[in-house]
Amino acid sequence: MFEAQLAELKRGVVDIVSDEEFIAKLRKGRPLKVKVGFDPTAPDIHLGHTVVLQKMRQFQDAGHEVICLIGDFTGMIGDPSGRSATRPPLTREEVLENAKTYQEQVKKILDPDKTRMAFNSQWMDNMVVADFIKLTSVQTVARMLERDDFKKRFQQQHPISIHEFLYPFIQGYDSVALEADIEMGGTDQVFNLLMGREVQKAYGQEPQVILTLPLLEGTDGIQKMSKSYNNYIGVDDDPSDMYGKVMSISDELMWKYYELLSSLSIPQIEEMRTTVGEGTLHPMNAKMRLSYEMVERFHGRDKAQAAQEGFVKVFQSRELPEDMPEVAIRMERPWVCAVLKEAGLVGGTSEARRMISQGAVHIDEEKIVDGEYVLPRGNHIIKVGKRRFARVEIL
Amino acid sequence: MFEAQLAELKRGVVDIVSDEEFIAKLRKGRPLKVKVGFDPTAPDIHLGHTVVLQKMRQFQDAGHEVICLIGDFTGMIGDPSGRSATRPPLTREEVLENAKTYQEQVKKILDPDKTRMAFNSQWMDNMVVADFIKLTSVQTVARMLERDDFKKRFQQQHPISIHEFLYPFIQGYDSVALEADIEMGGTDQVFNLLMGREVQKAYGQEPQVILTLPLLEGTDGIQKMSKSYNNYIGVDDDPSDMYGKVMSISDELMWKYYELLSSLSIPQIEEMRTTVGEGTLHPMNAKMRLSYEMVERFHGRDKAQAAQEGFVKVFQSRELPEDMPEVAIRMERPWVCAVLKEAGLVGGTSEARRMISQGAVHIDEEKIVDGEYVLPRGNHIIKVGKRRFARVEIL
Repeated sequence: MFEAQLAELKRGVVDIVSDEEFIAKLRKGRPLKVKVGFDPTAPDIHLGHTVVLQKMRQFQDAGHEVICLIGDFTGMIGDPSGRSATRPPLTREEVLENAKTYQEQVKKILDPDKTRMAFNSQWMDNMVVADFIKLTSVQTVARMLERDDFKKRFQQQHPISIHEFLYPFIQGYDSVALEADIEMGGTDQVFNLLMGREVQKAYGQEPQVILTLPLLEGTDGIQKMSKSYNNYIGVDDDPSDMYGKVMSISDELMWKYYELLSSLSIPQIEEMRTTVGEGTLHPMNAKMRLSYEMVERFHGRDKAQAAQEGFVKVFQSRELPEDMPEVAIRMERPWVCAVLKEAGLVGGTSEARRMISQGAVHIDEEKIVDGEYVLPRGNHIIKVGKRRFARVEIL
Repeated sequence: MFEAQLAELKRGVVDIVSDEEFIAKLRKGRPLKVKVGFDPTAPDIHLGHTVVLQKMRQFQDAGHEVICLIGDFTGMIGDPSGRSATRPPLTREEVLENAKTYQEQVKKILDPDKTRMAFNSQWMDNMVVADFIKLTSVQTVARMLERDDFKKRFQQQHPISIHEFLYPFIQGYDSVALEADIEMGGTDQVFNLLMGREVQKAYGQEPQVILTLPLLEGTDGIQKMSKSYNNYIGVDDDPSDMYGKVMSISDELMWKYYELLSSLSIPQIEEMRTTVGEGTLHPMNAKMRLSYEMVERFHGRDKAQAAQEGFVKVFQSRELPEDMPEVAIRMERPWVCAVLKEAGLVGGTSEARRMISQGAVHIDEEKIVDGEYVLPRGNHIIKVGKRRFARVEIL
């Protein structure tokens, strides 16, 4: 029983600091405080965030207390050096507004009754500078410069303002203020998560256990999912957008999404993967199942059903037959009506004109409206009506 | 007039940032605020400190306002990393006690009516952490690591706690709070002094002008004068101690002391140096003049007179004639009375015994009280009464 729960809590987790401490905490037999930090500047939660939210939900289901820590204290400072245009200071109203949006969104995954929202301004606003200075004595400059991003910028002689060194201490102190047992975050957060342990030790607390979760790649399959890379799938995206975006990921990435986002068990996912590998299941159908699950999670079954039907319809209407005829045409002046006739897509140029005037002719997915259009040389896919296709090369 | 005043204000100054700004400030025609920081942990002022105090006095005499800034805010924090055993946190009572001592001591050089004591806890205690973080955004990690001591420690991989990076910002902000026009300090303070300029600029103030003053070597002539090197001459030292300590410095160092500490003008000092060079004035007499001036400054004329007389008396009694006879004595058992007789310092052993019993015999500056004393082999200086000397080698 304990073993099964442990296995589920460890599912998809990249690293635990430390395994022994994690087990010892779980065996305490009391609800553990599980802290996850959220950036108050970007209230739109995307599927990348839901990786940790899913994990939080598992902790809730196991009887633990999860805390969404909104870093509003630093959010209201912004970037005082003015180097980062993307971090303007937020007002308290904006922070509260964003927090409300968060709360609405995380409700879709977390149990709202067992979810605590905390704001670090609550303790940071009242901290005196002397105590803050003592807090920063916990860590050395050399250790701070070991953090990947600082290291890189320091080596490349890009400026790092001193205040940037201070933010990790605040994140660490948040763990003291919350008496966190566990903190979770992406693999890019390891340094800050470990800082929480250091700070807790310095303040006489048992250090929190760190669980790092993988960063979900965005729809491009390269960068981590992020608003700034425009490769994200927002939990508030339209059902049809969401469905389509999930469908747009590569077959390979689909399996990672399954592992990190789906509520299917690992054996169920493995089985599906096998049937796809054997050719019994088409990868597109596997992906449709995932898209459906995501839309259902955030918008409900009806919307998921509708999104799926919409996708099928659009997909079928756009689908190109695999056995499309290929034609090479040598022509002095590749006038569209002549090309259509030569490719055998129409009986003659007058039929071609009629089809164009009806808006039934597409070249390379663009509707042709001009009956006098002349095609550029090269390869084109020409579609007439719903069923007539040809791959045409104009020489 | 302005030129002469400028020349006097620049006397002994190592560097000015910048000359043009300094002149522009002086031409403002209003009293300038001249800030100098004092360490609240070490209330005993020594001659090294008086270099800057003398300079402050010059500013006072020129009509400007001098401010002794006591860094009590950081003094009360101490070294929270616990790495430096020499920086225990001070209580507010200790700070005030130390400040009182300072005030007593600086009175001897500064005009108490024109001297303002300021404590940075006055503004730092009330600063909120958010504003402090903004303050630290003014400088980068790379620039901070250019500070000599940080640079060295970083290269040698000695730990630098983050809080140590924060103290220069406080010193800088003190200049903002005081609206300092000028800040002075030792050459080891350049980095922190310049920080004041950066911070003032960031807070929309005209940057302070920096005057750096040389560090006075201590009586050893090697290390800078400091309590921790035990080479210091405290302004509260006994008149005779002070006189003697100044007399103990090298002839070369004496000229630096003259330049930095004496109220003699530069031409007067130059003239004295020439007469010493020509042999007209013995360097010891030049040094006695300096010792007298220092004791007079801190203890008054009468004490200076007494200290000088005391020195002359002791010195003369200790003085060894340059034409001391040198004797080599071969003796199985170098009994003191036999040695005295053999060296021709007494008529016979009975006179030797009598002189010893009168306390009139010194060997190597130690009084001999035992008439049966046997000398160790080697070189000795033997003195009988006030005028009989011999350099004796016992073979």
